[in-house]
Order: sequence, then C-alpha cells, then structure tokens
Amino acid sequence: MNGAQALIRTLVDSGVDVCFANPGTSEMHFVAALDDVPEMRGVLALAEGVVTGAADGYARMADKPAATLLHLGPGLANGLANLHNARRAHTPVVNVIGDHALPHKALDAPLESDIDALTGWTGGWSRSCLSSDQVGVDAAAAVAAARSGRIANLVLPADVSWGDGGVAAGPVPVSPRVSVAEERLVEVAGILRPGTVLLLGGAATRSRGLLAASRIAAATGVRLFVETFPARLERGAGLPNVERLGYLAEQVEWQLTGVENLVLVGARPPVSFFAYPGKASELTPAGCSTVSLPEDALERLADMVAAGVSPVVAPAERPEMPSGELTVQNWVSVVGALLPEGAIISDEANTSGVLLPAATAGAPRHDVLTLTGGAIGQGLPVAVGAALACPSRPVICLQSDGSAMYTISALWTMARENLNVTTVILNNRAYAILRLELTRVGASGGDRARALLDLGSPEIDFVRIAEGMGVSASRAGTVEELAEQFERAVGEEGPHLIDAAVPAFM
Amino acid sequence: MNGAQALIRTLVDSGVDVCFANPGTSEMHFVAALDDVPEMRGVLALAEGVVTGAADGYARMADKPAATLLHLGPGLANGLANLHNARRAHTPVVNVIGDHALPHKALDAPLESDIDALTGWTGGWSRSCLSSDQVGVDAAAAVAAARSGRIANLVLPADVSWGDGGVAAGPVPVSPRVSVAEERLVEVAGILRPGTVLLLGGAATRSRGLLAASRIAAATGVRLFVETFPARLERGAGLPNVERLGYLAEQVEWQLTGVENLVLVGARPPVSFFAYPGKASELTPAGCSTVSLPEDALERLADMVAAGVSPVVAPAERPEMPSGELTVQNWVSVVGALLPEGAIISDEANTSGVLLPAATAGAPRHDVLTLTGGAIGQGLPVAVGAALACPSRPVICLQSDGSAMYTISALWTMARENLNVTTVILNNRAYAILRLELTRVGASGGDRARALLDLGSPEIDFVRIAEGMGVSASRAGTVEELAEQFERAVGEEGPHLIDAAVPAFM
Repeated sequence: MNGAQALIRTLVDSGVDVCFANPGTSEMHFVAALDDVPEMRGVLALAEGVVTGAADGYARMADKPAATLLHLGPGLANGLANLHNARRAHTPVVNVIGDHALPHKALDAPLESDIDALTGWTGGWSRSCLSSDQVGVDAAAAVAAARSGRIANLVLPADVSWGDGGVAAGPVPVSPRVSVAEERLVEVAGILRPGTVLLLGGAATRSRGLLAASRIAAATGVRLFVETFPARLERGAGLPNVERLGYLAEQVEWQLTGVENLVLVGARPPVSFFAYPGKASELTPAGCSTVSLPEDALERLADMVAAGVSPVVAPAERPEMPSGELTVQNWVSVVGALLPEGAIISDEANTSGVLLPAATAGAPRHDVLTLTGGAIGQGLPVAVGAALACPSRPVICLQSDGSAMYTISALWTMARENLNVTTVILNNRAYAILRLELTRVGASGGDRARALLDLGSPEIDFVRIAEGMGVSASRAGTVEELAEQFERAVGEEGPHLIDAAVPAFM
Repeated sequence: MNGAQALIRTLVDSGVDVCFANPGTSEMHFVAALDDVPEMRGVLALAEGVVTGAADGYARMADKPAATLLHLGPGLANGLANLHNARRAHTPVVNVIGDHALPHKALDAPLESDIDALTGWTGGWSRSCLSSDQVGVDAAAAVAAARSGRIANLVLPADVSWGDGGVAAGPVPVSPRVSVAEERLVEVAGILRPGTVLLLGGAATRSRGLLAASRIAAATGVRLFVETFPARLERGAGLPNVERLGYLAEQVEWQLTGVENLVLVGARPPVSFFAYPGKASELTPAGCSTVSLPEDALERLADMVAAGVSPVVAPAERPEMPSGELTVQNWVSVVGALLPEGAIISDEANTSGVLLPAATAGAPRHDVLTLTGGAIGQGLPVAVGAALACPSRPVICLQSDGSAMYTISALWTMARENLNVTTVILNNRAYAILRLELTRVGASGGDRARALLDLGSPEIDFVRIAEGMGVSASRAGTVEELAEQFERAVGEEGPHLIDAAVPAFM
C-alpha cells in the first residue's frame, strides 16, 4: 500500500467518501489510487473554486466533510475564496493539497510556492505529511479536525504519496462538546423577556434549534432573528419563520432598536458588512448586554422556560402566481408558488433576491444555503455539492449574473454528474449591488465609474454558455415563461438553467 | 483630493495608466475617482484571474506595469495563480487591494481575512496605506518596486481611500542596474568554447539579447538554449532561432549531454518541472560548472569575443499548407503558414503545441508569451493584456481546452474592449498532459483514474460559450476550415474564437 492508497482508505474509513478534484501531476498517485479504493467517489471540476465551493455545499447538507484534491499552491490559491465562505459557515472540509516531492522543494521549480502561507490564511487546521507510513494517521487527524467545523489542510508531497509502507488509520473519535452548566442556563433564562433578542446562527438555524427558539419566544416574549447569512437555514411550512438580520446596517439598527439584551446562539455580535463614512460598524445597540449560548443548549432552555408551549410555525401557503414581465417583485412569487417538496436553495441572488424570504415562507419545507463569507462565486458550486449530498432532493440555484461568472464551469460538473440542479440566473446585466454601494459610500461616480459596474456590454447569454457545457437551458422574460420553464426543469432529471431577464432593482 | 484620487493621479504620473479591475464595495471610491483622473483606463474583468493575468500580459508587452484593482482578501486570492505566473516571469505588476476601513478591521466582518498572508505569498513588495496624505508616496514607491520586475502590493483601506487630504506624488526614479565588471566578462569569455552552453532567460530572450548570443555562438562554438518557459521570446524570420530547453527532464538531460560549462544569462539552473520516482530533479550535468551573467552584459560580451561576426538568423520561410483532418502535426503548420506580421502569441497550447516552435521559426517576426509559472489559466488573460498594450498588433491565443476553462470569462473582456485577439482552442477533450504524467510518474491508474482526466463527457462547446460572451466563433475540424477561419479572424477587427478539434497526442 502506498501513501495515497493509505490516505484514501483512511478517509473512507473516517466517513469521507466524496472527493472534489482538480488534480495535476503531483497528484497522479492519488488519482491512480481511486481505482484501489472504489468507495471513494472522485468528482472532477474544471476550476478549484468549484472544487472548494462544492465541498462546502456538500458538507452543509451531508453534515460530514468531503475531501478536495488541489494542485500545489496555485491550485489551493484558486480555491481559497470559497474556502473563505466555508470558514465563515463553519463547514468541515478536508483539503488534500498535493505538493512537490520533499527533495524537489528546495529547487524552487516553477510551481513551488509557500503553501503554508495559504493554508494559514484559511484559519483552519494544517499539517504536512512527512512520511508514507504516517499519512493514515495524519488523514484521520484531519477528518477529526474538520468535524469540529473547521477547514483541515493536509499537504501531501508527491513522494509521500507514491512511497511504499502506507498504513491506513482508523477514525479518531471526536470528543463530545461540553454541555453548558445549568447555572448559566438559569442566568440566561432570567433575561428572557420582551426587550431581549435571541440571535440564531450556526446549528441554531436548523429545525430543532428554530423550534426550541420559537417555543422560548412564545413563552417569554423575546424576539428572534437569524444571522444575516446563515450557513443552512431550514424553513417553510411547519417550521418557524424567523426573520434574518438585514444586509444593510440601517436595517439592522432598525431591527434592533430598543433591544436591551442580546443572546447570541451560535452567532456573533452583529457588525456591518462594510464600513461607510460616518456610519456605525458595530450594530449592537448602545447599552445592550450580550451573552452567548451554544446551540445545543437551546432545547434545554426551552424545556426550562417553555414547558408545554408550542412553537409558532409558518402555515402552508403559497403566493398567488403573478403575470407579465419579470420584476424583482414577481420572480420570487414564481419560486414561492412552485418550490418543490424538500428543495435545497443555493441562494446567491444578491440584490435580486431581497424579496425571496417572504415569498417562500409558507412553501414546503426546504433548506437555504447562503453566501456566508461574502466572497462571490459560491452559488453554483454549492449547488453542485448539495446535489451530490442529497441526490433525491431538488436543488434550486438562484444565482445573480455577475457572481455566476466567477465559477461558471460548475455547470459542466452538473452535466457530467447529471445533477438535479435547476439554476435560475437573475440576469440584470449589472453588478447591481455595487450601484447601490457606490451611492451608499457617498462616492459621486460619473460615467466611467458606472461603466465599471455594467455587465450589459456585451450582454451575457447564459443559455449559450450553459449549452456549451452540456446543460439544457432556456430564456425567460415573463412570469409565464419562468413558471413553465421552472416546473419543467424541476420535473426532469439532470441539470437545467433558466436565464431570467430581471431588471436591476435600482 | 481624497486618497483614491491621489492614488490614481500618482499612478498615472508614474506611467501606470491602465487598471484591470474587479471591484467591490470597499473599492467604490477608487472606482468613482476614475472620473476625476481620465488618463487612467479602467478595464473590467469578470473574475480576478483575468485581472491579474491581463496585467501580466500587458506588462510583458508594454515594458511597464499595469495596475489591478482587487476586492479584499478573497479578490486577491482569486487572482493569485496568475500572479504566481507573473512572479516567475519577473513581470512588474501594481496590485491595489481594497480593504475594510481601518476601524472596521478589528470587527472581523464577513469579508475580513489576513491579506498580509496572501501578499506575502506573492513574494513581492507590499505596503499597507495608513493615511490619505501618504497614499501618493506609497503608490509611487509601489510603481518603483514593480519596475524592478516584481509584484507590488498596495493594500488600500476604504477610509484611506475616501479620506480627504490626498497628495499626489511624483515618480520615484529607479536606480540603474550596476554593470557587471570587466574582469568578470573576461572570465566568462575564457570558457566560451564548444562544450559550453549559454542558457538565455529574462531579458536575454528579446531580440538584442538573442542577436548578441548568436554572434557569440558563431564566434566561439558555444551552444545556445532558451529557458523552458520564457516570459517573452522574440522570434521569427530575421532573428536567431534558439531552441528552448524541453519540458520533460529526459529531454533536458539529452539536450545538455556532455556540457562542461553552463552560463546562465537571466536564467536559473535547470530543474525538472516535477519530481518523478527514481529520476533526477537537478538537470545540470554532473561536473558541469555554472556561472551567471546579467542580461545586459550579453552585448558587451559579444563585442569582446565576436567583433565583426554576424548572428545566424532564421530565414523567412513558411511551412507548406497541409490538408485533411486536424492533427497535432498539422495545425501548427496552419499557424506557421498564416501567422500575420508582428503577431503576439499567447501560448498555452500545452501538449497540443509541442510542434509549434518549428512551424513558426521562419514566420514573420513575432513575440511568444509562455506559461512561466505552470499555473494554468494564463493564456486568455495574457492575450487580453497584450492586446491592450499593443492595439495595432494581432494577438493569437493558442489555448488548450482544459486550461481555457479556468479563466474563460476573459472572452467577455475581449468583446467588451473589442480586442484584436484570435483565440484557437486546441480542443482534445482531455487533460492530455496528465494522461502523459500519469504514466511518467509510474502510477498504473485504471478506469476511474482516467475518467478524472477526461473532458469529453460532456464535450465542451467553445463556440457556444464564446458566443454567450459576445465573441464571434466557429468550429474547425480540418486544416482547410482552420486556415479559412484563421485568416478571416485575423483580418477582421475584434475578437474571434476557433474551436479546433485536435486529437490528443496520446
């Protein structure tokens, strides 16, 4: 058994059996070893931003890490932006980063670079594999590190990969989280009253956390919010419909007006996404107290303060189907009206999606995966990963045009793996959010500035681009067209794309 | 004048008047300032790999840096791979990396990350701008640093950008290189004889260096080689046709058999691109002496040892036009037969291009820009930059299919700026080089391994993809089709793409 075989065997034995890959020469023994450990599924992507974003989407839905296979420093570099999003989502990811053979590194060959600087940037766990007989132990440790909600980086020199004497290692048990002390719960219970807000993030945005929080709110009068960009939000009919904090600082200030106590459940104190001249960055109201509570304490807290109280859940209701030309107001109603049972929404609709939550609150139960770290180009890759994690569930990728182009080759992987993803491109022919931000930061900006935010010259034809990568595609300009195409896409196996002409919201 | 205006004014006054950009909110004041300093040309790209690759291509041809505008850590991360190639090419680049306002950084907002880790990875010059009144001085220093052949990173916090009190600074003079001492030249002259090789890199692969080297070879019997991946190689009829060192270690060992002295002129000692089990990584023959010489000493050395001796230059001659289905052997003849006067070739043809140098040696004078750092996805962006630097010269982008998909949105920028780029996609439906490497590293590899190197399922239709981004495109399966389409594309203004079905070479 060589190092690569021991590595893959260890990953599989630790429950990691999907590897998103864009390999190069230094990874060829890893690739060859895929034939020796057939339980590992290798999924090829045409760019590393797709590899890492897919690993993020996979783990958000599978609740276990996928592996990635990346080619030296430049390959890792290409995948960093979506690892940034994964880090902000606390997603477990195991990166296998191929490196030059150890004696080759000192020669500064063309692809040599300081990989440690890049793994350090991910803020995760990192280890270089130094011998073939230890690579199994290293891999098991990486999976354990990832399972604590981090990015684990395993640097695999080519000679460690090809060297004999590999030994697979068993899974490393993950130590259970220490439960919060009873006294602390009693303390928090003491401030549960109107004027207190529970801000839900992390695992608290899943059904169990939301139901517990809703019971607490019903019993005590606290208000609930979900953090601005949750990693995975379960919602729809039968689940509490909890409002998210807004993207704009002004919205959040308004949402938190008069709040005296903020209980952070798997969330961090709210701050504005960007700084603006003369505006506040810290959004916790002055004089408001802040306490933190781990997500798994929420049900205990509910049992303490809301025994016998039922949660308030969204009734099953769908928006009326509108008609006419597509607008920012009506396309979300189409999605709300037609969202299939058990859907997974990968949401990178950005400005086009501001009205989506209201339109889908009473739709059948679904998951929403959002842009946790603000590094655009996440939506399509996350859809790839989610579809691989949950092959029997329909994945809906709501994707703005500008962001789509960062990782557009994800469409090819969707076609190659015949994934059940319906992508709706919200094509407003602009970096619309930047038009808004240009105004908000107080920059005047003339024609040359606005031209740099314009995507309409030339217009991007996503139908042709999708077809060029083997994805069936159509164009919608009206509600009727979108509705008909959306229903058909969701009903047919395999990937589809709808290029929806939605006007910019400003 | 705010900080952004002072920055752009300083860049322009220092000779940097093109900025490849993919901005975000923190860069909005920089974008707005483009209207205040109209000498700066902002060029929008849809992904940062295009931004940085275009800056590389621009500077290789313009012999001065372009600026880039990147959005925080993730934006820089997306651009790193092509900065790696630029670093290996010794290309001057000035990166302007927008950052959060200084007081905002401590809040760890979603897009916050350790930018210094990434600028450090580039191995270049880095500085954070800390006040609006100093940003001009910082920018002038960055341009001077870049002009010494490095990547200069200027981190620009949003509040420094929007703050008043900006002061533009004048150019910083770049100190002239110290000439090599006469005694050293005499020493080197003493080993110029058969058995000695001059390995040419850096500026020595431009016409003056090549002509001087050729005179030296004619007078002394030394042999000449160009490094494997030159940043910019001038060649064609009237210039010496100097063989490049091979990509495969075996080739280089054969090329350097029996060499006793190696004179490195702007080049480094040859090492293999990757390590292979049981094969040598260092390719300088055992017992061979090595000396280094700066590129600008080459003409002095020629005057010393080859006074009155003429260089040996390639005669003007074109390959015969072949016919029939496209092959790895014949497509290069089409390019050789039809290459227009003054062409710039951005060469990322990889395995499909192994026979290109012979086919174009006698074509009209042209420049070849190669994949200096091995980080694929360079070809299309470099073509964008070269076309902007040299608007009156035809740019030919020879691009393999797998690598094309990394930075495919470069096509959109070609259309937007109406650039004279003819892209030929060598579409062999595989990561063909990895099929070769899988064998070379001694990995067996079964069906699952080979599937991970296959790009034929689904087939990528580059005609549709190009049309989707506004680039006129056609498909060629035969020599006749390629020739007709190539001639037409080169003859018409604006970008064109030819999707050429070339079989994989193995």
